[in-house]
Amino acid sequence: MLYHIFLFLVVLVLVERGSFAASPLEIVSVNEQLAHTEAVRNDETNQTLARTNFERLERLSNRSRYVARSCKEIRDRYNLREDGLYYLTTANGMVYQTFCDMTTAGGGWTLVASVHENSIYGRCTVGDRWSSQQGNNAALLDGDGNWSNRNTFGTAEGATSDDYKNPGYYDIAAEDMSVWHVPNNFPLEHWNLAAILRYHTDNRFLRLYGGNLFQLFKQYPVRYNVGSYNNRGPAFPIVYDHGDRESTRLLYGPNSRGEFQPGFITFRAINNERAAMAICSGVKPVSGWNTEHYCIGGGGYFHPDQCGDFPSFDWDRLGKGQGWSASKEMTEAAVLLFYR
Amino acid sequence: MLYHIFLFLVVLVLVERGSFAASPLEIVSVNEQLAHTEAVRNDETNQTLARTNFERLERLSNRSRYVARSCKEIRDRYNLREDGLYYLTTANGMVYQTFCDMTTAGGGWTLVASVHENSIYGRCTVGDRWSSQQGNNAALLDGDGNWSNRNTFGTAEGATSDDYKNPGYYDIAAEDMSVWHVPNNFPLEHWNLAAILRYHTDNRFLRLYGGNLFQLFKQYPVRYNVGSYNNRGPAFPIVYDHGDRESTRLLYGPNSRGEFQPGFITFRAINNERAAMAICSGVKPVSGWNTEHYCIGGGGYFHPDQCGDFPSFDWDRLGKGQGWSASKEMTEAAVLLFYR
Amino acid sequence: MLYHIFLFLVVLVLVERGSFAASPLEIVSVNEQLAHTEAVRNDETNQTLARTNFERLERLSNRSRYVARSCKEIRDRYNLREDGLYYLTTANGMVYQTFCDMTTAGGGWTLVASVHENSIYGRCTVGDRWSSQQGNNAALLDGDGNWSNRNTFGTAEGATSDDYKNPGYYDIAAEDMSVWHVPNNFPLEHWNLAAILRYHTDNRFLRLYGGNLFQLFKQYPVRYNVGSYNNRGPAFPIVYDHGDRESTRLLYGPNSRGEFQPGFITFRAINNERAAMAICSGVKPVSGWNTEHYCIGGGGYFHPDQCGDFPSFDWDRLGKGQGWSASKEMTEAAVLLFYR
Repeated sequence: MLYHIFLFLVVLVLVERGSFAASPLEIVSVNEQLAHTEAVRNDETNQTLARTNFERLERLSNRSRYVARSCKEIRDRYNLREDGLYYLTTANGMVYQTFCDMTTAGGGWTLVASVHENSIYGRCTVGDRWSSQQGNNAALLDGDGNWSNRNTFGTAEGATSDDYKNPGYYDIAAEDMSVWHVPNNFPLEHWNLAAILRYHTDNRFLRLYGGNLFQLFKQYPVRYNVGSYNNRGPAFPIVYDHGDRESTRLLYGPNSRGEFQPGFITFRAINNERAAMAICSGVKPVSGWNTEHYCIGGGGYFHPDQCGDFPSFDWDRLGKGQGWSASKEMTEAAVLLFYR
Repeated sequence: MLYHIFLFLVVLVLVERGSFAASPLEIVSVNEQLAHTEAVRNDETNQTLARTNFERLERLSNRSRYVARSCKEIRDRYNLREDGLYYLTTANGMVYQTFCDMTTAGGGWTLVASVHENSIYGRCTVGDRWSSQQGNNAALLDGDGNWSNRNTFGTAEGATSDDYKNPGYYDIAAEDMSVWHVPNNFPLEHWNLAAILRYHTDNRFLRLYGGNLFQLFKQYPVRYNVGSYNNRGPAFPIVYDHGDRESTRLLYGPNSRGEFQPGFITFRAINNERAAMAICSGVKPVSGWNTEHYCIGGGGYFHPDQCGDFPSFDWDRLGKGQGWSASKEMTEAAVLLFYR
Repeated sequence: MLYHIFLFLVVLVLVERGSFAASPLEIVSVNEQLAHTEAVRNDETNQTLARTNFERLERLSNRSRYVARSCKEIRDRYNLREDGLYYLTTANGMVYQTFCDMTTAGGGWTLVASVHENSIYGRCTVGDRWSSQQGNNAALLDGDGNWSNRNTFGTAEGATSDDYKNPGYYDIAAEDMSVWHVPNNFPLEHWNLAAILRYHTDNRFLRLYGGNLFQLFKQYPVRYNVGSYNNRGPAFPIVYDHGDRESTRLLYGPNSRGEFQPGFITFRAINNERAAMAICSGVKPVSGWNTEHYCIGGGGYFHPDQCGDFPSFDWDRLGKGQGWSASKEMTEAAVLLFYR
């Protein structure tokens, strides 16, 4: 019990002091982050043995009576404000469950997808659903094509253990996006606290691009050789809910930091080799186009050693955060995408 | 607005005049088809932004109260006649949602599967669930075996974006089949209009083969080296709901047209190299056995360059419709299978 | 009708005489087993054509009103005792359907997973979700990692046709395990009768290991090179519900029989080459460590010819049950895992 109180305090302290504020000592920042993550991780170990709370279970189960297409509609129609799983219905009547963030900046955020790197060594192999599972193949311009089709996979509870895409990705008409970077395998009830970065847009940019990523990527196909690095899609400023520009910067490799500007979300980046990536989450490339080291998802063809959902986050040495390589924290965190 | 009315008229005209009637000018027919498809495609671009119609959403959601094993039972027990998603229940009580065609020839058709070619360049690679995802392997006689097991995958809304198989495939006791060839990535609400071919049987042949494909393929295994081309399974005449024999013929390669007779659906075809295919949809091989160019699905082994869900539809040149190669329309259309 | 009565009697006789009792004549035992399996198999062929029993269907459908996290809670809260599919809810409110065994040793057993070998020739290829789908790769220590993450796949009805893992695997707080070895592709309603082995623990060992396999394998990671064969996890005695120690012994290869002791379930075995396996189901390695021939699941790296969900069950010759090779019965049976 004392141990749990201690853990709780550790987490509290880390959160309170804004653990990712700019620091001249990068190594300290990374260690803090690890402590933060480990504290939350240990906290969840014994919970499974908790006795079933049937009242709570029935309350959650009764959420199937609410009918809405998005978490925003759940919030607005039923005035519900609790984070967690809700039932949503597509325009055609397909029902699915997903996670609603009902607290960030007014709440109403629907989890529609997660990009999870199952094997940083895999080069467009099984599990690389957001680029290609067919190997690095210049003939497969769009790779698996999941950024712009109605295929779905995974579950909300498994969103940090594998890729996830639900019907909301193409069905919801939204205005803004929110992104959480959550360490792999964390359980849903701790995502908010465990995330190494959380941020959202507030300029309603999706209104101009069809209301969701499915429509946006019709306009900006995530496709090999669709153009040069000059042809990247739009970038929008973000508001931080956890972390800041400096902590974002430090999560990528030292060399990458010279190329991008943190504090943005960028769509359909193109690198020097004309490979397309879907999202540069947290950053905007401004003075260099080695985007394979800090942008995720993609078409079906990259430089031979770069194909994958996190294309070349491990270029110099896995998880060492040196050269072009992203930090271990970033490489081993799933990217959760929300709409509102 | 005027633009939409124009598109609607284009589609209407195309549909009214039976756009696939026999034509001496094949190139015109193909162009018409493209126009048809493009018109529908453009029509759907902006719909996602439409405001949620909650009354409709609740009505769709309330369909979960109907209990039935097939769309035919939904029609007969509840007298429902609207196309769309319904809830079905297997004999064991497993619940799933799928699309019901409630209008064609009296309605009551259950979508149970779709065969979608995710990569015509893949040779029995990831996504080739209806043949083999294990590579071309003579030791894997049945490939992934999905024609004759209870594995399921995909969703109804994603049926033109990836492979789909629901429990109805093995659970429903049916009499007839219907097939829709729908361009990849089309949304459910436009399938009927966008389909390049639609047809059904009306001789109740499934009664003789166990009531569904799962049982039929127990009798006629989709297995490499199970016999010679003489050992193909049964073929049955079809009634066209969109398109006709001549448009069917033109959708396959010029060389293939000399081998088959359009106006049929054929099961478990076997080619010259003793590879088995599951369905020749729309045609019956009669004077040649290069069935890999116009039949779909299969066991785990083909001629090295032919393994896949659409085994060798691109033999001469992808989408050029020359030599043995099927047209681009056919190669890029998912094959939707219905029972009644 | 007479035919069905005959089949029923055959099955009855086989079951009554305890067909797997120790026998000096192994070949007889194997034949009996085949007869047993074939009898059940034939019995199911024509059932699909049976008319829908709507009363039963509605009764099954109404099970969605019961709210519980496990089959044990279904039994205890609602006093239900019928085997079959029920709805369960995770602590976070995620709803899923799975099979409950409500009869064995008091009932209340939840099916949480199945390990199915889709291709004994595949060496950590597509479908090897319980080891690795990324090839045999020493860099991927944990392989796909599904023994210790929240990823889920498959369905209860498909649990003998492909791998299955539902949220209960990580969500349920259990005490004991039950295991059924069911011939591939058998339908749910015949699993109990068709199983070649059924057994369970009764010492509540899971209480000491976090309440489920997800937690147990956090303590004993299924990871290449995590230790030597001396570092295997715990083994617990089993109580047989069908079969016995001798029939268990005979289902594995003659050479393997010299290494293990039947009548146990063992977790996280490690072989001579430091490859980790998840479960030795039915046996405990005691005097040799070629566990790849009789233990299932694993990390991402094995001896080159051994990687897979049933790593090296076919070492000498597939299904011949000679040398180190397991019997055809064992190699072609899915391993169903239950919690209570």
